[in-house]
Amino acid sequence: MNQKKKLSLILFSGEYDKAMAALILANSARQMDITVNIFFAFWGLCLLRDPEKMSLEDKTAFEKMFSIVAPTGPEDLPLSKMNMAGIGKAMLKEMMEDHDAPELSDFLKGAQKKGVKFFACKLSLEVMGFKLEEMLPEVKILTAKEYLKDALEANIQLFI
Amino acid sequence: MNQKKKLSLILFSGEYDKAMAALILANSARQMDITVNIFFAFWGLCLLRDPEKMSLEDKTAFEKMFSIVAPTGPEDLPLSKMNMAGIGKAMLKEMMEDHDAPELSDFLKGAQKKGVKFFACKLSLEVMGFKLEEMLPEVKILTAKEYLKDALEANIQLFI
Amino acid sequence: MNQKKKLSLILFSGEYDKAMAALILANSARQMDITVNIFFAFWGLCLLRDPEKMSLEDKTAFEKMFSIVAPTGPEDLPLSKMNMAGIGKAMLKEMMEDHDAPELSDFLKGAQKKGVKFFACKLSLEVMGFKLEEMLPEVKILTAKEYLKDALEANIQLFI
Repeated sequence: MNQKKKLSLILFSGEYDKAMAALILANSARQMDITVNIFFAFWGLCLLRDPEKMSLEDKTAFEKMFSIVAPTGPEDLPLSKMNMAGIGKAMLKEMMEDHDAPELSDFLKGAQKKGVKFFACKLSLEVMGFKLEEMLPEVKILTAKEYLKDALEANIQLFI
Repeated sequence: MNQKKKLSLILFSGEYDKAMAALILANSARQMDITVNIFFAFWGLCLLRDPEKMSLEDKTAFEKMFSIVAPTGPEDLPLSKMNMAGIGKAMLKEMMEDHDAPELSDFLKGAQKKGVKFFACKLSLEVMGFKLEEMLPEVKILTAKEYLKDALEANIQLFI
Repeated sequence: MNQKKKLSLILFSGEYDKAMAALILANSARQMDITVNIFFAFWGLCLLRDPEKMSLEDKTAFEKMFSIVAPTGPEDLPLSKMNMAGIGKAMLKEMMEDHDAPELSDFLKGAQKKGVKFFACKLSLEVMGFKLEEMLPEVKILTAKEYLKDALEANIQLFI
């Protein structure tokens, strides 16, 4: 019954806790055989950055600065609340460990393994000066129109 | 016609104004005979904390610290913007009073009276170290999968 | 096929980047002949404020203060992340210029030209002390119930 159901997420936020919420929903949906497409836009793109592939080549001065100050990869994201210079995040991660909850990067890898499709917003990539080569493998570029076309066919659409 | 319509909200944010937006939508929907289920996750759980039931028993050191620094109940939530150490919120509350608009805690009680169902995200409760006994009465625990199953049947799904 | 499709957005956030995301989705949808209604609530109303029509008449002391400190119009909005006293926003705008991407105010005018309908949340207007006369032309007032009635008929509903 659920095989044809689809969950469409826009991950706009580049925050540890919001990304975790998105990935928990995505992974849970895949366990229910729901198709899941995540459209990473703006700060959400920071989640897809591969820390080992970061490059400053072919970038303008602003793009270089931005590349350096923007978070690189899942574990580098701040909390949306109570970040308190990283203390809140350290606390949250400790509490997650106490409950054997996986880290954000585990959720991310798990999502790709479970078949969640990752899409990077074309315009956001350009504006933020990120290149597809700096991102995780298997990420595809999508325009806003292509996102909308896909989201129209989804049963649940969320902006996170 | 609207009797079978359903509104499904995830309240992830622990902010006064966002919680107010969620509850205004929920209460308005109930007045239109729309079924409303709110799934409180992460910071959204702070809204459900009963200030008089807060407990530090059976909690790890981190959970105790977290229990103390996280907002306790609706009136303790900060604004998402212009909070300015509480001044912005005081202004907003003054302006609401001038217009006889109820406070957030009134919206919350009103929602429960009107039949809005409150659900606490199971994983969030565990990670944040909150216990169901510390929450408002009539809150039930729900897993992410149960949320998704319910949201699939809703006509409107929002992530707030 | 898409002519009868509808996109319903709540723009709650008063942030430059989130407003841009909302307007890019809205404009892209209009190019696909999708009907688009945006319901501006709380901080989202700041986007509709016409800098040349700001007025302090018939306002309480709090409303006057609020009118002055709240952002006036699209270019006055802060970034949701890395605003860094405006430096982050300046960088983002520079990078957008490098890519010939239009500014937020262009997206806003473009949306109205393309037939995106703008609605201001009635309760938010009252609470924040803004008046319809201070807003862009062609903005209509809508209650939360009217929003819900409209959103029930939409194919995609997002809270931004």
